[in-house]
Amino acid sequence: MTKFLLHDFIIEEHVKSALKEDIGFGDISTDYLAGDELITAELNTRNDGILCGLDVLKMVFRVLDKDIEIVSYFQDGDEIKKGDKIAEIKGKARFVLIGERTALNYIQRMSGIATETNKYQKAIEPYKSKIVDTRKTTPNFRMFEKYAVKVGGGALHRFNLSDCVMLKDNHIKLAGSIEKAVEKVRANISHAHKIEVECDTFEQVKSCVSVGVDIIMLDNMTPEQMKECVEYIDHRAIVEASGNVKLSTVNEIAATGVDIISSSAIVAKAGTLDIGLDM
Amino acid sequence: MTKFLLHDFIIEEHVKSALKEDIGFGDISTDYLAGDELITAELNTRNDGILCGLDVLKMVFRVLDKDIEIVSYFQDGDEIKKGDKIAEIKGKARFVLIGERTALNYIQRMSGIATETNKYQKAIEPYKSKIVDTRKTTPNFRMFEKYAVKVGGGALHRFNLSDCVMLKDNHIKLAGSIEKAVEKVRANISHAHKIEVECDTFEQVKSCVSVGVDIIMLDNMTPEQMKECVEYIDHRAIVEASGNVKLSTVNEIAATGVDIISSSAIVAKAGTLDIGLDM
Amino acid sequence: MTKFLLHDFIIEEHVKSALKEDIGFGDISTDYLAGDELITAELNTRNDGILCGLDVLKMVFRVLDKDIEIVSYFQDGDEIKKGDKIAEIKGKARFVLIGERTALNYIQRMSGIATETNKYQKAIEPYKSKIVDTRKTTPNFRMFEKYAVKVGGGALHRFNLSDCVMLKDNHIKLAGSIEKAVEKVRANISHAHKIEVECDTFEQVKSCVSVGVDIIMLDNMTPEQMKECVEYIDHRAIVEASGNVKLSTVNEIAATGVDIISSSAIVAKAGTLDIGLDM
Amino acid sequence: MTKFLLHDFIIEEHVKSALKEDIGFGDISTDYLAGDELITAELNTRNDGILCGLDVLKMVFRVLDKDIEIVSYFQDGDEIKKGDKIAEIKGKARFVLIGERTALNYIQRMSGIATETNKYQKAIEPYKSKIVDTRKTTPNFRMFEKYAVKVGGGALHRFNLSDCVMLKDNHIKLAGSIEKAVEKVRANISHAHKIEVECDTFEQVKSCVSVGVDIIMLDNMTPEQMKECVEYIDHRAIVEASGNVKLSTVNEIAATGVDIISSSAIVAKAGTLDIGLDM
Amino acid sequence: MTKFLLHDFIIEEHVKSALKEDIGFGDISTDYLAGDELITAELNTRNDGILCGLDVLKMVFRVLDKDIEIVSYFQDGDEIKKGDKIAEIKGKARFVLIGERTALNYIQRMSGIATETNKYQKAIEPYKSKIVDTRKTTPNFRMFEKYAVKVGGGALHRFNLSDCVMLKDNHIKLAGSIEKAVEKVRANISHAHKIEVECDTFEQVKSCVSVGVDIIMLDNMTPEQMKECVEYIDHRAIVEASGNVKLSTVNEIAATGVDIISSSAIVAKAGTLDIGLDM
Amino acid sequence: MTKFLLHDFIIEEHVKSALKEDIGFGDISTDYLAGDELITAELNTRNDGILCGLDVLKMVFRVLDKDIEIVSYFQDGDEIKKGDKIAEIKGKARFVLIGERTALNYIQRMSGIATETNKYQKAIEPYKSKIVDTRKTTPNFRMFEKYAVKVGGGALHRFNLSDCVMLKDNHIKLAGSIEKAVEKVRANISHAHKIEVECDTFEQVKSCVSVGVDIIMLDNMTPEQMKECVEYIDHRAIVEASGNVKLSTVNEIAATGVDIISSSAIVAKAGTLDIGLDM
Repeated sequence: MTKFLLHDFIIEEHVKSALKEDIGFGDISTDYLAGDELITAELNTRNDGILCGLDVLKMVFRVLDKDIEIVSYFQDGDEIKKGDKIAEIKGKARFVLIGERTALNYIQRMSGIATETNKYQKAIEPYKSKIVDTRKTTPNFRMFEKYAVKVGGGALHRFNLSDCVMLKDNHIKLAGSIEKAVEKVRANISHAHKIEVECDTFEQVKSCVSVGVDIIMLDNMTPEQMKECVEYIDHRAIVEASGNVKLSTVNEIAATGVDIISSSAIVAKAGTLDIGLDM
Repeated sequence: MTKFLLHDFIIEEHVKSALKEDIGFGDISTDYLAGDELITAELNTRNDGILCGLDVLKMVFRVLDKDIEIVSYFQDGDEIKKGDKIAEIKGKARFVLIGERTALNYIQRMSGIATETNKYQKAIEPYKSKIVDTRKTTPNFRMFEKYAVKVGGGALHRFNLSDCVMLKDNHIKLAGSIEKAVEKVRANISHAHKIEVECDTFEQVKSCVSVGVDIIMLDNMTPEQMKECVEYIDHRAIVEASGNVKLSTVNEIAATGVDIISSSAIVAKAGTLDIGLDM
Repeated sequence: MTKFLLHDFIIEEHVKSALKEDIGFGDISTDYLAGDELITAELNTRNDGILCGLDVLKMVFRVLDKDIEIVSYFQDGDEIKKGDKIAEIKGKARFVLIGERTALNYIQRMSGIATETNKYQKAIEPYKSKIVDTRKTTPNFRMFEKYAVKVGGGALHRFNLSDCVMLKDNHIKLAGSIEKAVEKVRANISHAHKIEVECDTFEQVKSCVSVGVDIIMLDNMTPEQMKECVEYIDHRAIVEASGNVKLSTVNEIAATGVDIISSSAIVAKAGTLDIGLDM
Repeated sequence: MTKFLLHDFIIEEHVKSALKEDIGFGDISTDYLAGDELITAELNTRNDGILCGLDVLKMVFRVLDKDIEIVSYFQDGDEIKKGDKIAEIKGKARFVLIGERTALNYIQRMSGIATETNKYQKAIEPYKSKIVDTRKTTPNFRMFEKYAVKVGGGALHRFNLSDCVMLKDNHIKLAGSIEKAVEKVRANISHAHKIEVECDTFEQVKSCVSVGVDIIMLDNMTPEQMKECVEYIDHRAIVEASGNVKLSTVNEIAATGVDIISSSAIVAKAGTLDIGLDM
Repeated sequence: MTKFLLHDFIIEEHVKSALKEDIGFGDISTDYLAGDELITAELNTRNDGILCGLDVLKMVFRVLDKDIEIVSYFQDGDEIKKGDKIAEIKGKARFVLIGERTALNYIQRMSGIATETNKYQKAIEPYKSKIVDTRKTTPNFRMFEKYAVKVGGGALHRFNLSDCVMLKDNHIKLAGSIEKAVEKVRANISHAHKIEVECDTFEQVKSCVSVGVDIIMLDNMTPEQMKECVEYIDHRAIVEASGNVKLSTVNEIAATGVDIISSSAIVAKAGTLDIGLDM
Repeated sequence: MTKFLLHDFIIEEHVKSALKEDIGFGDISTDYLAGDELITAELNTRNDGILCGLDVLKMVFRVLDKDIEIVSYFQDGDEIKKGDKIAEIKGKARFVLIGERTALNYIQRMSGIATETNKYQKAIEPYKSKIVDTRKTTPNFRMFEKYAVKVGGGALHRFNLSDCVMLKDNHIKLAGSIEKAVEKVRANISHAHKIEVECDTFEQVKSCVSVGVDIIMLDNMTPEQMKECVEYIDHRAIVEASGNVKLSTVNEIAATGVDIISSSAIVAKAGTLDIGLDM
């Protein structure tokens, strides 16, 4: 019942902009054929997957006409099967037709991501590991993508550059060493923020543990290397595996005992789930 | 040299918003480790594909620091091979690091779409058909996706609801028949706009020809049905094939003689091309 | 009943900005004299014309106070005669007074354009020609002006630079010839878009017909020249007359058989219709 | 040399929005025909008038391409005669062509208003009266219209509802009397703001003088009535004449000795000045 | 009942932006602990003061959830005593918790300013002088600060640079003399605007009177100097005292007979009033 | 040299909005008196303090005129003494005068906060404690206030609701206990985020330690209670003291051994530092 909340007043702004992108100077097909007569449309899925984005779809229609009625039979996070009727939309013909494409564009992509994430999460179910997203998102669409990952059963990595430190190769080179980089950053950041360091080698992992970083990312390591690191770290830091995570390899990675597996593929390669509107 | 133009002043706004999405209250890793020291980063591709989005990547860095220098060895539309150095970026360390993710998010997705589109277009090369996109795009990212389709060698369908009429099932039902729908719309729209009608049956195609529509879309027909329609239409309208277009089926569709093959997959299923920044 | 639709969520944004332009830091006259007491105001026309902009006027008051009640006795497109009561507005005194000027600024201009357009359209009534607008509009007010032209009985030309090709002198010079320009553009644009070419001479018209352009604009020709062109073209393209179209000459132009007569005067020279609010 | 200043950073925003309105998804005529080749265009006037809006025109082109060079031979406020070359624009063909319409839309309207205002001001030249504008402006375009009135030699009335009190019929009715309205407002407004009252009768004028208002507006009075009021007021307030001011009557009004003559016609009925771009 | 009006549609925009500033990607504490269960919170003051900003606080919660019910026992401008219950807020737990900080940030600051202003105004109560604010405000927060000054019993100075002339040292130097500066400005500004001049010396005051400026500001003068100026001016202009106005000196200044005492301290040094939300 | 970075492209937007707030329809004093003649102004401090906001001040003038030259003799974070010349501004008279107030409004407030923060930080210098800010900031001005706290030598608390969990009374009540609240939140949030819990009692502190929260806030405790808690916690969590922190009590609090002392006063009660522009 409590959940990662997409606030209405924030969605609304994105949706209005998207509707303007699609409407331009008006829907010249619909404006002259459809009026205020009421029609009913069914939102059906043509594939199996995890539903995500229902509130955004509702907002699309509500922006066009606040009187449109939408009854839904599922909610975000539910498994839907090919042929399931997700919702029924009843409203003025013109607004149902004008909003259709934009509404579907949101829900198809968001459900696509939730569905893909869910596959990864299920693949590692016996293990305690969590699949998380990355910052490889579509510009100005991150909020929706992170929400979809969460709805699909995944967990989230940091939202942006300001809510967790992540030290990569270049940061470390600039500072001289992991130790120096961590020290310098720790002296400056808020006590409310964590520090994560990306490691390519076991030596780097040791440095991280010695200076007490919060999260150690094992970047592009083999399962064997990961296992070695997990054992060495021994709960002194959260362990994150990253790099080339695929649906076919994710179980093997989880088996190494890492806490977190981050994957850009759950968003970038997710595609869309085929959900349609039938009148 | 002339091309579908992404205007700087329009990109700039999208890029600033994306940077704010990623920067939040500041890059707490970089702010305390990197300063004004100059560094050089190479933009390298880790996969084969079609490059797209170089100007957007440049804008990302230029918004952060107008003095960043970027020399590029390829341009949008070029084929790039795994290992190719696309560009060299020289600028203040802090800005190169802060802009990296957002810049890559644009170029990876845009190149992904250009690459996917190119595969489709190449698959139908012997034929006169053109592969075109649809309105199934990411909300508020359509401009970049259409640009990428064009760069990948595809052609474009209408931009939005106001630049071409497209009559679908529901429009026709509301009007009573194709003939009535076309008549009503024609009486109202600008002489500058075309009319396209979606047809599921040969009968519908005949109706379309009889009232002289500009474009006839053959929706979800078999290659045989398409061929029959193309012959019947006989250049009296532009013929568009749509529905379930895949890389494996597109050649067969082109062979039917249709003018246009529209596919949402070239955008929705494209994924990203793996391009990275190495310092 | 179906019509060129000004979407509420789009109008709202323009109206809010206009209200801020007029309100500044507050209405220092009204804030201290008028409160929540209900008053009734009549919207009356002081001139004959075509009413246009009622929904925009309503939006102005609704933005200020969602409880204002507006009953209207006419609708957009209706002929109104001097003295007609168009609507009755009942609401809190302060909001009626604060919104008055902005509301009238919209409806006076929009009705002015609808009225002017209507005069032109009536002047050519016996003929099949349609009067259409141009892109000579007030910056950031085009949507309202195009809507008013439509409401006044006119038709519309393209909305902006992206929904129809229009080749002018300079485009043709750059390409070398009409034939080359059309060929180059046709190879690049969407199949969903038309091509129009501006012609000053009969020779140019012949070139246009030979390459099958969709619309031929006869620019600044005499009625005799137009007639000659119309006959030559013989329905192989839509014919548009343009240049120096006046209320006094429009009938003579229509008599030449052109399909479309485009005029910037119906917007640029329309002025305002005198509509007022009486309490 | 000092003047009513249109700040670049404020114009820029309006211009960008207007360009987006006109460009949509791109100029499909120009994008494929014109590139970076330099061309030179002349800005010529095809009518006599007062030039206004040169900086706005420059901004239009500068937004598209910061390297466009514009040399101007006149400046805002100058009289221009049919055939005069106002400026020369040298830049990349694509940007000159794309910006043309939007640039002209600004300068034609602004020059139209400056020209009309100038006619009124000249018509009353022997008298000390000043012609001023009103708040009957195009929504979201007021700044440009007020600037044009000033450039045309007119003076300005208040900018919006917050910089001067203007008590009209309804304000006075709500308060009970002019005396009460003025008293109530005076007790509340800033000492930095003036109070103006609209009067229909001589009696009302007397009330205004008795309570010492700053400006007395004589609304729809005959020249004889105005004269009587001017004499009575005898410099104890600024006197403004308003209502039905026409070019044919303005001289007679000025002769009554009023200080200020306000006219909505100088903006609303001004139309455009025919200025064009020749390549 | 009538008052300086903060329009809902204007507040709403500021509030939404402030909420986004505080919410970022979501309230990660509340999202997972609080849901739609109704809770009631009391808005209590922990200090004495003048209440200000109740409508803004309501807007914060209304933006988050339009169904939140807020019953208030006081209104803006009321004196509140430590322990007073100002309002009761009943709504979904998640929205009450998420909106709390932003809502308090507005009301604490606005009440702080109203409270401080009120102290100054009370300190000069026996005199006719009015305490007014200045343009030394928090960037992009001026509207709220001016409203608070008004609610606290103060009066207002000009809103911004365009609603009253204020000639300072530098303006006068540039013109050559007060006389020349006033003459030049008077020839150019609207008749609807006043002229104020800042004076450091008695000589300057005399110049101002001689050219009939509307407001004379006595800058950083001693009470004795002020008195002398007030007597000399003798109601021929409004007299404003400015510079180093403190709560401890304001009474002495008022005693000199000046009409207006302007103080930046009532805003800049006001701090916040401690108002809290108890569940 | 590396520091909390206020990005130019983000400041610019805030500054433009603030300039519009102050300029309205133009500076009617300056527009008619000052032109392009160059003048030089000195930025001087009239009080001792910590300088903050120099880049923002520069941006104000740069937005008005990109050619204004500003040479600064101090930088953010420097101690400045009454009478110090901070910078010299050379530019066109009109722009220096128009930008003055807005520029000072930023730098005065930001320096005020930096100065106040610095006093607190100095007061606890012998101890390892850090003074940090809170989320009690001015709506839509937080970025500048947090920057100023950092520049003044303080540290920062979380930026907003999404970068660290903070469990307060109400969260805990809703969950049932600290243990349950922490468990529920931990299961849902990102591994990249920390958990802080507000404690009023020693018992609560024990609960926090038992479930391993990252930060324990001691709310409104006496120094003796704090000391007891610090000893009990014994580095198993970061300890933050909060509530009623004053300049007079902060040293005593630091002496208890807490890591972090959070204070809203360093922002809310800071006032402005008197910095002025002398021509």
